[in-house]
Amino acid sequence: MNIREEVSKMKKISPMTAALPLETRNHALTLIRDGLNAGKEEIFQENKKDLLAAESEGLPAAVMKRLKFDEGKLRDVTKGIDQLLALPDPLGRITLNRELDEGLILRRVTCPIGVIGVVFEARPDALVQISTLCIKSGNCAILKGGRETTFTNRVLFRIIYDCLLDAGYPENCMLQAEQHNEIDELLRCDGLVDLLIPRGSNSFVRYIMNNTRIPVMGHADGICHIYVDADADQEKALRIIVDAKTQYTAACNSVETLLVHRSAAETFLPRLAETLKKEGVKLRGTKEVTDLIGGETIGEDGFIEYLDLIVSVKLVSSLDEAIEHINRYGSHHTDCIITESPDAAEKFMELVDSAGVYQNCSTRFADGFRYGFGAEVGISTGKIHARGPVGLDGLVTVKYRLYGNGQIVGDYASGKSEFHFRDL
Amino acid sequence: MNIREEVSKMKKISPMTAALPLETRNHALTLIRDGLNAGKEEIFQENKKDLLAAESEGLPAAVMKRLKFDEGKLRDVTKGIDQLLALPDPLGRITLNRELDEGLILRRVTCPIGVIGVVFEARPDALVQISTLCIKSGNCAILKGGRETTFTNRVLFRIIYDCLLDAGYPENCMLQAEQHNEIDELLRCDGLVDLLIPRGSNSFVRYIMNNTRIPVMGHADGICHIYVDADADQEKALRIIVDAKTQYTAACNSVETLLVHRSAAETFLPRLAETLKKEGVKLRGTKEVTDLIGGETIGEDGFIEYLDLIVSVKLVSSLDEAIEHINRYGSHHTDCIITESPDAAEKFMELVDSAGVYQNCSTRFADGFRYGFGAEVGISTGKIHARGPVGLDGLVTVKYRLYGNGQIVGDYASGKSEFHFRDL
Repeated sequence: MNIREEVSKMKKISPMTAALPLETRNHALTLIRDGLNAGKEEIFQENKKDLLAAESEGLPAAVMKRLKFDEGKLRDVTKGIDQLLALPDPLGRITLNRELDEGLILRRVTCPIGVIGVVFEARPDALVQISTLCIKSGNCAILKGGRETTFTNRVLFRIIYDCLLDAGYPENCMLQAEQHNEIDELLRCDGLVDLLIPRGSNSFVRYIMNNTRIPVMGHADGICHIYVDADADQEKALRIIVDAKTQYTAACNSVETLLVHRSAAETFLPRLAETLKKEGVKLRGTKEVTDLIGGETIGEDGFIEYLDLIVSVKLVSSLDEAIEHINRYGSHHTDCIITESPDAAEKFMELVDSAGVYQNCSTRFADGFRYGFGAEVGISTGKIHARGPVGLDGLVTVKYRLYGNGQIVGDYASGKSEFHFRDL
Repeated sequence: MNIREEVSKMKKISPMTAALPLETRNHALTLIRDGLNAGKEEIFQENKKDLLAAESEGLPAAVMKRLKFDEGKLRDVTKGIDQLLALPDPLGRITLNRELDEGLILRRVTCPIGVIGVVFEARPDALVQISTLCIKSGNCAILKGGRETTFTNRVLFRIIYDCLLDAGYPENCMLQAEQHNEIDELLRCDGLVDLLIPRGSNSFVRYIMNNTRIPVMGHADGICHIYVDADADQEKALRIIVDAKTQYTAACNSVETLLVHRSAAETFLPRLAETLKKEGVKLRGTKEVTDLIGGETIGEDGFIEYLDLIVSVKLVSSLDEAIEHINRYGSHHTDCIITESPDAAEKFMELVDSAGVYQNCSTRFADGFRYGFGAEVGISTGKIHARGPVGLDGLVTVKYRLYGNGQIVGDYASGKSEFHFRDL
């Protein structure tokens, strides 16, 4: 497949796709939901091929679990489609409606971004989530999933694309890339692709960012912190830390570093050590921490992303010191303070420079589903365009529509006419 | 000056700057407005040095006009500050307020981007506009203006920075770069600078984009179109075309290409030729156009950005053909349809993929001041983050605040708890 040629066709029809009314987009989603249910035997069949191949390659069990597409995963994705159907139209929202002068009306209106390329890991449910988010938001999409689910992706994509055509979408409104080298072709499609969303390892996301002129919305590391304040409820702290570390260790929103206020150290650290041990979590810490409760001693450069049952622990003398550490060593993803003090929580939330700033709950809540967005195409640790879990809102942009009746700028420059800026 | 070192200091204090209340930010703006008025003799004096140097270098009159900072420019910038003072706080706006579950409250709140680097052309008024927009939006900024206004920029920056300190801002909240090589140092400050805004020539903006890992919000070409529909009021069309081409020819929002519906060609083209001739605008066109009214004949590759008193003319057979031409050859900046048909206007606005889609008014309206934004830091032709004239809205991002009371994700995964997503 010549990616550039295919993407050129997509670019050309993308304004038509963008203009499809909500009814058409929702109708397509309904067809897809029903099509996935009707085609489930074939999907499971194809998925088995992927699983067999993965098994023979000796992939670890945790990965195998992600590759699997069964009744449970099918239920989750169709439930996700139902949620998307229920969400209001993200397009055509008027975010500014202003009379600049008599008969000169400015409207800022939300519209699709256009052509979006998403490169994602081997998870068949991700293909359904990403494509349906793009459909609801009026975007054309190029999808490239992980190699390990080639058969499953192929049948899922065929069902989705056929439903789009049945719903009245133009041909080339969606495209599946299958070969790894097609990613590099895609990276060279600047001017045709409006946005790239890479998901996967840090090194992969960085590779994409460094090798394209297309804007990239990617998430880098997730070095999330939990700070146990002097005014913390220690029971809560332990419960939250265990969840944030162990509920899904390999997720970017799991906790990697614990900061503990010195005044709480003596009572809290022994309990922490005991709890972590019970959960099979290894502890690393600065010298004063390991002197107290054991574990491997780390230096300034030891506060890294483990994605494993390991956690770093450090003592701080104040809330300010905790905030400074997080802003310096964190990845601006999601950070939490455990405190019963509303003032401390407010200060923490104000000064910590992260997409998610939490009080007394697990960092694992940082997720499009849990935020009620229906699904997510990724979690952005950048501050530009979208930040945090990205749902429909992150897939739209705006247009300024200006309705006039012959107005020219010369009249305003000369003083003959004057703006009066009245919001309607 | 070691840029990286200075920018590191700025990064460190940027959360404090971001947390300054509206009163402090507005107080700083008031001090700056008064400080500029009080210091005007010194400013004019320093500006004279720049003008003398420019004169001796033989810069053209059009450029000299931009370098000049006089009573008129001072009045404009202080008026701009008054407009900014009157605008509501762009920070702390709650754009989502949702109960995920009993006692688990999610709030999406606007906040500053953090550290912004702006590289702009030799225009002293731009320095004031950009810095005051950054102040109102809680951002720290590194400013690098054009070399030709070094003396003026220096005194303007000193006044602004002193006022910031007087208002209670932390040191290093704003920085002026003066040397050209400092731009390259700035480009390497990824991780410290959150956003770069380059203004200037296309080649300069592209240079920046290709040489940094920092997100860039830049505008590329402005190949703006006016399409004269079959249902156009030809008087309006001529008046608007003259304004859009001649009112400020070197601006990115001036018109470069005229598309004329074939059915209007016979009556309209001779009038157009006559009008353009009177205004000193040279005409280029496809063969059928120049056969009718003369001028240089151009091919498919002739639809370029002139920034000069030249315009390209082409006939089209339909609104669809006009839209296709604009989407293919345009730069997605600002495009206008001249028509009395609301349906044609609607279709044009829906399908033309540009930041500004206009009906019956000059493309020159595409501007932050004219949109009522107080000022602009630039005009974005990208679709990511901000599109069109960028005012305060484009200088903020969001944070997700999540307030809990011990909630963990495990309880929701196991089914013990369930989200109910209630917008408050």
